[in-house]
Amino acid sequence: MIFLKNDYSVGAHPAVLKAIVDSNLEYFDSYAEDETSEKVSCQVRELIGQPEADVHFIVGGTLTNKTCLAAFTKPYEAVITTTEGHIAVHETGAIEATGHRLLEVRTADGKIKPEQIEEIVAYHNMDQMVIPKVVYISDTTEPGSVYTKAELTALREVCDRYGLYLYIDGARLAMALGAESNDMTMADIAELADAFYVGGAKCGGMIGEMVVIVRDELKTNFRFMMRQNGALISKAWLVSMQFGVLLKDGLYEKLGRHCNELGKKLAEGILARGYELAYEPESNMIFPIFPKAQAEELMKKVMCQIWEERGENSVIRLVTSWASTEEEIDEFLSLI
Amino acid sequence: MIFLKNDYSVGAHPAVLKAIVDSNLEYFDSYAEDETSEKVSCQVRELIGQPEADVHFIVGGTLTNKTCLAAFTKPYEAVITTTEGHIAVHETGAIEATGHRLLEVRTADGKIKPEQIEEIVAYHNMDQMVIPKVVYISDTTEPGSVYTKAELTALREVCDRYGLYLYIDGARLAMALGAESNDMTMADIAELADAFYVGGAKCGGMIGEMVVIVRDELKTNFRFMMRQNGALISKAWLVSMQFGVLLKDGLYEKLGRHCNELGKKLAEGILARGYELAYEPESNMIFPIFPKAQAEELMKKVMCQIWEERGENSVIRLVTSWASTEEEIDEFLSLI
Amino acid sequence: MIFLKNDYSVGAHPAVLKAIVDSNLEYFDSYAEDETSEKVSCQVRELIGQPEADVHFIVGGTLTNKTCLAAFTKPYEAVITTTEGHIAVHETGAIEATGHRLLEVRTADGKIKPEQIEEIVAYHNMDQMVIPKVVYISDTTEPGSVYTKAELTALREVCDRYGLYLYIDGARLAMALGAESNDMTMADIAELADAFYVGGAKCGGMIGEMVVIVRDELKTNFRFMMRQNGALISKAWLVSMQFGVLLKDGLYEKLGRHCNELGKKLAEGILARGYELAYEPESNMIFPIFPKAQAEELMKKVMCQIWEERGENSVIRLVTSWASTEEEIDEFLSLI
Amino acid sequence: MIFLKNDYSVGAHPAVLKAIVDSNLEYFDSYAEDETSEKVSCQVRELIGQPEADVHFIVGGTLTNKTCLAAFTKPYEAVITTTEGHIAVHETGAIEATGHRLLEVRTADGKIKPEQIEEIVAYHNMDQMVIPKVVYISDTTEPGSVYTKAELTALREVCDRYGLYLYIDGARLAMALGAESNDMTMADIAELADAFYVGGAKCGGMIGEMVVIVRDELKTNFRFMMRQNGALISKAWLVSMQFGVLLKDGLYEKLGRHCNELGKKLAEGILARGYELAYEPESNMIFPIFPKAQAEELMKKVMCQIWEERGENSVIRLVTSWASTEEEIDEFLSLI
Repeated sequence: MIFLKNDYSVGAHPAVLKAIVDSNLEYFDSYAEDETSEKVSCQVRELIGQPEADVHFIVGGTLTNKTCLAAFTKPYEAVITTTEGHIAVHETGAIEATGHRLLEVRTADGKIKPEQIEEIVAYHNMDQMVIPKVVYISDTTEPGSVYTKAELTALREVCDRYGLYLYIDGARLAMALGAESNDMTMADIAELADAFYVGGAKCGGMIGEMVVIVRDELKTNFRFMMRQNGALISKAWLVSMQFGVLLKDGLYEKLGRHCNELGKKLAEGILARGYELAYEPESNMIFPIFPKAQAEELMKKVMCQIWEERGENSVIRLVTSWASTEEEIDEFLSLI
Repeated sequence: MIFLKNDYSVGAHPAVLKAIVDSNLEYFDSYAEDETSEKVSCQVRELIGQPEADVHFIVGGTLTNKTCLAAFTKPYEAVITTTEGHIAVHETGAIEATGHRLLEVRTADGKIKPEQIEEIVAYHNMDQMVIPKVVYISDTTEPGSVYTKAELTALREVCDRYGLYLYIDGARLAMALGAESNDMTMADIAELADAFYVGGAKCGGMIGEMVVIVRDELKTNFRFMMRQNGALISKAWLVSMQFGVLLKDGLYEKLGRHCNELGKKLAEGILARGYELAYEPESNMIFPIFPKAQAEELMKKVMCQIWEERGENSVIRLVTSWASTEEEIDEFLSLI
Repeated sequence: MIFLKNDYSVGAHPAVLKAIVDSNLEYFDSYAEDETSEKVSCQVRELIGQPEADVHFIVGGTLTNKTCLAAFTKPYEAVITTTEGHIAVHETGAIEATGHRLLEVRTADGKIKPEQIEEIVAYHNMDQMVIPKVVYISDTTEPGSVYTKAELTALREVCDRYGLYLYIDGARLAMALGAESNDMTMADIAELADAFYVGGAKCGGMIGEMVVIVRDELKTNFRFMMRQNGALISKAWLVSMQFGVLLKDGLYEKLGRHCNELGKKLAEGILARGYELAYEPESNMIFPIFPKAQAEELMKKVMCQIWEERGENSVIRLVTSWASTEEEIDEFLSLI
Repeated sequence: MIFLKNDYSVGAHPAVLKAIVDSNLEYFDSYAEDETSEKVSCQVRELIGQPEADVHFIVGGTLTNKTCLAAFTKPYEAVITTTEGHIAVHETGAIEATGHRLLEVRTADGKIKPEQIEEIVAYHNMDQMVIPKVVYISDTTEPGSVYTKAELTALREVCDRYGLYLYIDGARLAMALGAESNDMTMADIAELADAFYVGGAKCGGMIGEMVVIVRDELKTNFRFMMRQNGALISKAWLVSMQFGVLLKDGLYEKLGRHCNELGKKLAEGILARGYELAYEPESNMIFPIFPKAQAEELMKKVMCQIWEERGENSVIRLVTSWASTEEEIDEFLSLI
């Protein structure tokens, strides 16, 4: 079986694993009060050029999103997201479970436009309605697109205009930063967002994500929110240590680039064979459209996922990971 | 000023007021354990032909909706509603505040179609997603339409097919039951819904709504949910007593009919003068479309509400109440 | 039957009822945006000497407490209360249902002492623990005691020292202000508390309570919290109007005084007949201790409540209301 | 520095680490749908003699407790715990944050007695109060004591009598099962509890806990609750695999025994030197009482925690782990 189902079904990059193994029998202070966590936080602050940023480590994207969004909002404040945003469809109502309404906008490519935010803000103009407060975006987005600096800057401006926070779900930030179309550094991200998380589990880490809070007022008592949500683990050094490795010497972006290059190879091979793609290929998720019977046949030899049925056709989702190889891509292409 | 802004800006029907005044100095047991509340509950059970139904009294529509919907669902279960449903836009996220996601469907006339429910159920097919569990409808709907028995029966069937509960927000049930197009009794409603509420405040009552729970499994410990939500008031007899009066000898439907007849007069007069309506007039809410300048001019003499801006035009919402008079309608029509 | 079960089982004081009846067919703006609500708010601001205070009207004590306490706290902040506080035992977990932990202190007489607050604050000193943020007291307290100005001032000081809010549940504020031992005006209350509610339903009103928010930072978006909790009713004028009457010319305190005087007569009569009281009688709730058999016998002729069993004895709770009469007290005393 | 601060400040037992390293580059299905997770679940079911039990894997004790307790209760149902229970004091209100009230009982040794449960159930007898529904205990308890089979059986009986669930927080279950005073197997635990969790992070695992649900009605849709709480991680195989190792050939109990033996050595050495212990030593947590100055002096050379100040003395908490050595204990004892 060729594995192209997702980018979170394999362990850690060898360098990450080595760090965990090497420190296995050392004592660390718990709950992120250890020296490694402090050192990695400093490393991150320097990398992003935000000496005052708060850095936290959480295991799991849903847990990260819900802890952050609940921390950043009052009960009557709502979160703007795309209709296919992870928090909207794939977290079993986790955000609503913290008491907050989502305000969803429909997009063609997974990217929110400033006008859509303006429209929502304009509509919510009375106390019978929630107050939009946070704009949630993911980068890369769910269908694999990547925000440009101009796009993110435009979102920042509309957020500033209406007193909204901009929060970025970076579960696949490595792929965003490693995209051909990318024109941002993590420092740019940090300058434009109020808070964001840097994904580990899908980007070469074993487990865990890293939250960066740039905006001062969002930092207050965040550890209490983490505790209450079960998001502060005793062995936090195990997570921070991974980011220490991933963020050193550009490994993080490099792993993203690797995924994307294999994604591109996949996309070009599929297009060359006369098939269409449901979304513009920009990162490591490729959405080819095959006749249903062919898709079914393929899935006997390839681990992957049906994304959507479109009449006689199936859109399937192919995902490359930091561990994927050229050979796997060639083998896949030989099947179609 | 002619008052056509809403149907909840005036006190109680004289017969309701009389009951309150007459009993003012009597002692009643508190928290709905008094004889009047028990007697009215029996009266309701008989009226709707459901000898086992539970009957509760709550002050306020939002409080009623949130208490019921939170009681009927587990944390990961969601409520289906129209996009303009009261719980979706006009309750400041009250349902999400109880932890539950809303699943919204777009409609032309405020009425959910069975296919829309089927589509939502089909889409929510994995544990990353919430489970649709309750269908919330209002009757009359927000734009004033009225469900027919055939339509409600079709919803019932789809609910049965997928194990969903059907809950009706009857804030304006008097107007639904008193509509020309209506072909149902309150007993029909009770047979088709799992639970519903009978609006008082907009339908001749002074204050308060009445919840009827038909489905057995939804009755368990409902009073605990009421207590926790602050929905069980000490002087519950003040509310139950009103329903005793309203539901006697058809007063409730009669008051609804009165509103609707004035609504119809309004609609016909407006159409006769060459204006269009944004929604088909079926009950006591009429949505004429006027040029902006004219709408503005009108609103100097008529208390009413802008519903929506449509380019050069304004849709305004005119609402008649049980206390409205033919003279007020004539006066309004003389202004256009 | 003599009715001494509680002070919320009878309608409204005639003057309150008259205001409701007289205005029954007038049009009012809804959701507390009417002129009466505004006028009463001004009247209250003047009465308490707080020209910037916010005034809101809510039906029900539990709903009032939960809306206020949820509005005043962040998710990880907790509310200090006595173990017998209404929010701790008689609201079915309403405060916890909004996500907040209660921190309970045991008292002899229902009154929190400053040292108890200090102890709780000292104990909660790490992010594994909640942060104490609001001190909830009731006045009169659940066992009927009344705070003195010195006591309330001492609580204010400890709250200031630790950045806590002081919130007063005034379900029976009329009885507190009308107590012989009382040395405060409502203006004093307003100066010492950050927010408090003035009870209507137990104090001569038909229905409803009045929230006064003095502290600026607690005012922000409170109406959104009310909406979300179902605590903002359309016909809010019906509640505000009652407070307009009750707070004019000292009627409120006068009704409290009336209850208390009958309470005192009851207490003195009971003591004179050789029985003991479980709590010092200070207001309208009297807790005599009778042998079990006698208590049972009494309860065939007197509507009242067992408060607690103490070995061979029963403590019963007797409550006088604004509608109670000397004759009823005499009749009760003739039975023991 | 001698490290005796806790049992969660070191990595994984070498056998556990080896399993993780060896499988690092294999592909696994995500979200616990992989073969390893299934195999380990079978291994657990067999080990505990419960072929129908559900087994789940979660990272973090607070997250595990809150997911379970929220899943097992309706909004108005409460959880009984000791006052020093982890959920009561060290989870920043996590359980209340899910909407549930805790009912706390005071104990001498951390163990709940059946009579205390009965008393709470008897007291909560009206709909103004929450309904006690789950008994939460930890084993070992917070002060290090261990339940006997007779004690647990007695709790089971009282739970059965009142329809309560019994849930065990087994963060240190290895130490409980490996205690000298222990007379239970994990199968006994499974027979007596409705659900429990088996701690990994403190018991030789790298990270993660294992939930076992025995009672059928508690199994329904538990994965949805996990998703919503952010408790279902993509790389669940990393956790399940650890339990596969720990639960093979008694390694889990063996590691617990090791901790306890060092704990005993510590306790005996301290007592022999004339100091007292605040709690009876039964497992791996030892609570010696030292004069304040001595405690301070000690803490310059020993990483440990002040548990409580008692007048002139400090109670400190010493904790041994699976990685602690006899030499460390000797070294500690040489300091006093």
